[in-house]
Amino acid sequence: MKCYTPSDLGQMDKFYRANFVNSLSGVKSANLVGTKGRNGIENLAIVSSVFHIGANPPLMGVLMRPHTVPRDSLQNMKETGLFTLNHVNSSIAQAAHQTSARYPEDESEFSATGLTPFYSHEFKAPYVQESHLRIGLEVQDIQKLDINQTELVIGQIVEVFVDENIVSTTGYLDIEAIDTIGVTGLDSYHKIQRIAQYEYAKA
Amino acid sequence: MKCYTPSDLGQMDKFYRANFVNSLSGVKSANLVGTKGRNGIENLAIVSSVFHIGANPPLMGVLMRPHTVPRDSLQNMKETGLFTLNHVNSSIAQAAHQTSARYPEDESEFSATGLTPFYSHEFKAPYVQESHLRIGLEVQDIQKLDINQTELVIGQIVEVFVDENIVSTTGYLDIEAIDTIGVTGLDSYHKIQRIAQYEYAKA
Repeated sequence: MKCYTPSDLGQMDKFYRANFVNSLSGVKSANLVGTKGRNGIENLAIVSSVFHIGANPPLMGVLMRPHTVPRDSLQNMKETGLFTLNHVNSSIAQAAHQTSARYPEDESEFSATGLTPFYSHEFKAPYVQESHLRIGLEVQDIQKLDINQTELVIGQIVEVFVDENIVSTTGYLDIEAIDTIGVTGLDSYHKIQRIAQYEYAKA
Repeated sequence: MKCYTPSDLGQMDKFYRANFVNSLSGVKSANLVGTKGRNGIENLAIVSSVFHIGANPPLMGVLMRPHTVPRDSLQNMKETGLFTLNHVNSSIAQAAHQTSARYPEDESEFSATGLTPFYSHEFKAPYVQESHLRIGLEVQDIQKLDINQTELVIGQIVEVFVDENIVSTTGYLDIEAIDTIGVTGLDSYHKIQRIAQYEYAKA
């Protein structure tokens, strides 16, 4: 194995380093953030930084990097307090990746990529109809990370759309069965294949 | 699809809800956090909440939930300012999962699970020798999330051990080639299989 040092990282060019460091966190979730602006434009942005914050209350976090693409999405989250998270599956991987392009402000990534907005009766942010697991969230807090001005959006779950057949008797969701995929680095998408499911660990 | 509401979530029992909500974030990275206490005890804890924060400076975050197991690990991070992240591969999945058991304070999860501590010349926190991608980090900041008292540890990368053959000419790391696995829910482990790698998206 090679040991990469801060000096090695410092000498990498910008895009090489972005690829390299983005690869280090391992297999990441691929989710589409759906929002609607006050101007009525529906935004959609792929993110790989969604994580579990707590089960009760049910909270999820997504780190938004204002200097990269999902700027409109972040603004919509702030202005409306609502967003959706939609699992990416293999059928929509290419369209999901394409949402990361810089479209003009008045163009929706839904129409640009061919994905279909879906609205529930109760919730004003758009879901992705082609996604097999869709979550509606209300913004509870936004914490700026002083270290590099990224913003951690914390949302509370208010709706979850999923086929109840994948929910086990213990509450586990078999997201492999609905073809949820993962991402590595900035641009590589992966199916998942279960190798083991273990009991609650005891000493 | 079924629509789960806050009322549905509220009626779930505690373990069912933990499973359910932990499944929603999608495919998660599986990393082992390595630390060493001031008492000399080496701690190891599996986490599924590691994410990319920025490439320059190179920063990664891990959300620690003090009321669950990695309490000693969090304390060590605070006291020493150092930790390692080690990708879990399929050969060590079971041992990695087992680190989530509640061992006595004076017992190291390394010896309890059969994993081997590895030290570099420069860094005082233990790596996992059986991991094929190991990252040494210095704590830069710890932000408490007021909403549920979880703690976001932000670390700056100071060492990365990886086979340079998996580093592409663009900086992308082929972590599938080193058998890095992902996790879904609380207890299910998955190999990954690339379905596509896309160009930088343009409008």
